[in-house]
Amino acid sequence: MRTLYHWPLDPWSRQVRIALAEKQLAFELRFVRPWDAPDELMALNPAGLTPVLVDDTAQGRVVAVEARAILEYLEEAKAEPALLPSGAGERAEVRRLCQWFDRKFDSEVNAFLLHEKLEKRLQGLGAPDMEAIRAGRDFLRWHLDYLTNLLDVREGLAGPRYTLADIAAAAHLSCIDYLGDVPWDEFPAPKAWYERIKCRPSFRAILEDRLPGVGPASWYADLDF
Amino acid sequence: MRTLYHWPLDPWSRQVRIALAEKQLAFELRFVRPWDAPDELMALNPAGLTPVLVDDTAQGRVVAVEARAILEYLEEAKAEPALLPSGAGERAEVRRLCQWFDRKFDSEVNAFLLHEKLEKRLQGLGAPDMEAIRAGRDFLRWHLDYLTNLLDVREGLAGPRYTLADIAAAAHLSCIDYLGDVPWDEFPAPKAWYERIKCRPSFRAILEDRLPGVGPASWYADLDF
Repeated sequence: MRTLYHWPLDPWSRQVRIALAEKQLAFELRFVRPWDAPDELMALNPAGLTPVLVDDTAQGRVVAVEARAILEYLEEAKAEPALLPSGAGERAEVRRLCQWFDRKFDSEVNAFLLHEKLEKRLQGLGAPDMEAIRAGRDFLRWHLDYLTNLLDVREGLAGPRYTLADIAAAAHLSCIDYLGDVPWDEFPAPKAWYERIKCRPSFRAILEDRLPGVGPASWYADLDF
Repeated sequence: MRTLYHWPLDPWSRQVRIALAEKQLAFELRFVRPWDAPDELMALNPAGLTPVLVDDTAQGRVVAVEARAILEYLEEAKAEPALLPSGAGERAEVRRLCQWFDRKFDSEVNAFLLHEKLEKRLQGLGAPDMEAIRAGRDFLRWHLDYLTNLLDVREGLAGPRYTLADIAAAAHLSCIDYLGDVPWDEFPAPKAWYERIKCRPSFRAILEDRLPGVGPASWYADLDF
């Protein structure tokens, strides 16, 4: 029995959902609001953040907290299909890009777009700040340029194969795409890459997410957008 | 030949220096200012951040970027002495605490104390904001309370043994301690734990760090403080 505490538009919860699906590990979802964390979540993660995975294994219960810990755990618990390559340099490159999205993209794009357009609305924190939204959109273009450079020499973001780096990037971008803010048509290489990711069975549940009262962009779930 | 690009009061650079010393891996230090990243660093890490480890191994050059990627790399490259325990649940707990310090402590304590008292001064960003410093000190007390709770049932932060969680916590706290802001005497259990960490040979170089023009607190390097 495997339970994942998640919030649908949390980019870290999404990374874990995608990785679990890639590894064909069954799990139950427990919906929580991180800004109103229930006691049950606080007992598992005193930081009150999603995702948290509770995995009852033959060796006992494993509680893995936050995406990086969960993703390393899943890779160690079920090696195939591998989401980290085998070479040391390639593994380091995947983990660099995961950090890139989890720290840099998060502070430069999510902090503006996700926070201003979604979190403020859901948490009743007032109207979005248009200046912040513009800054987030500028940073997003810069990040899509960076992806274009990577994809110029690579099939996946971190190398020839699909890895945790693709999952991290797609999870973050998919939340921004829900809001309709990704200018895909200006960035053909990232668009073609995201189209390939969207077609994977592991992404199906992500495309079915709907927040009550906040619908996605019209093309959000289209495989050919 | 192993080269680490670092900045002395960067808590992430410190984690890697301590781990390299624990594993008795020789390395050369290359001093860089992350807010004025040289081209050499930007070519290795386009985010411009320290630490970056360049390791010329028998299998070729490995470039590992940012602390989490470097620390996982080192654990895989040289398993002994182990800085991650062997059980899945214990490994997840170590990684949870690493994230706790790298994200939560960083945004609640470093962002106020390190930024206001040190980074602003070195980068010529104006006078420190006393309100922010007070907020950082309040958060720091809260974190020391949390450490007290952990240490009530554990010898190390994540369990009976010394792990990457102790290294992460000590690296972050040591930067704040350089500034003289840790009220050790009010928190005897974290103080006794930090005293044990300070006595390890792997911590010696950290205690010898001196920034030109910004000296450490008088007790910073004392093993008995």
